[in-house]
Amino acid sequence: MFRELLRDIVDKTEGGVAGLIMDSEGIAVETYARDGAAFDITTVGIEYGVVLGSIKRAAESLEAGQAHEVAIGTDKLVTIIRTLGDSYFLAVALRPDGNFGKGRYLMRAAAPKLLAELG
Amino acid sequence: MFRELLRDIVDKTEGGVAGLIMDSEGIAVETYARDGAAFDITTVGIEYGVVLGSIKRAAESLEAGQAHEVAIGTDKLVTIIRTLGDSYFLAVALRPDGNFGKGRYLMRAAAPKLLAELG
Repeated sequence: MFRELLRDIVDKTEGGVAGLIMDSEGIAVETYARDGAAFDITTVGIEYGVVLGSIKRAAESLEAGQAHEVAIGTDKLVTIIRTLGDSYFLAVALRPDGNFGKGRYLMRAAAPKLLAELG
Repeated sequence: MFRELLRDIVDKTEGGVAGLIMDSEGIAVETYARDGAAFDITTVGIEYGVVLGSIKRAAESLEAGQAHEVAIGTDKLVTIIRTLGDSYFLAVALRPDGNFGKGRYLMRAAAPKLLAELG
């Protein structure tokens, strides 16, 4: 079920290369990568998961409410991260020329289902 | 000139509340806030500037190239950050219902001019 949801988001997002659901300790719950993905999505999740922790603390310190979405664009990869409650997050990686808006939309739409399943 | 460019981006982005140009040490070069902005953009810049440092290091460690754009969405504020070379960044804060795509576009369009001026 997690894998199907991940595949659905990644494959329907033009330029989507991989996706994962990870807990806040850096343990992947599920991953999915298209053939030929140049990055290991688990490694991306671990690195950016650490960053996500700092972002959550920064948002608290700013009294800006809960952080629910983060996007990081680099030369080679755009990664969209969506928090799933306090303990999990969903991340989808796209090529820089991928359809960022579509990825965000599909992730936002899938979040309640994922959250219900994880909770 | 910096203030005019900031004002132009913030005012033309529906839901835009404030913007700043900051160096990587957390010193603001210029700021602009619309009347009634609920957040101090300099404080936002300092908090997220620290996070941006971690993101740059994570991207390097992933060999994903240079990080050039980061967006952070919380309950109360969406902040788009664009790096301006190694030493500066541009940040624009929007209301959560603001026009994210427009903000990103205007920031991307303004970046070369800002970079030339800062360089």
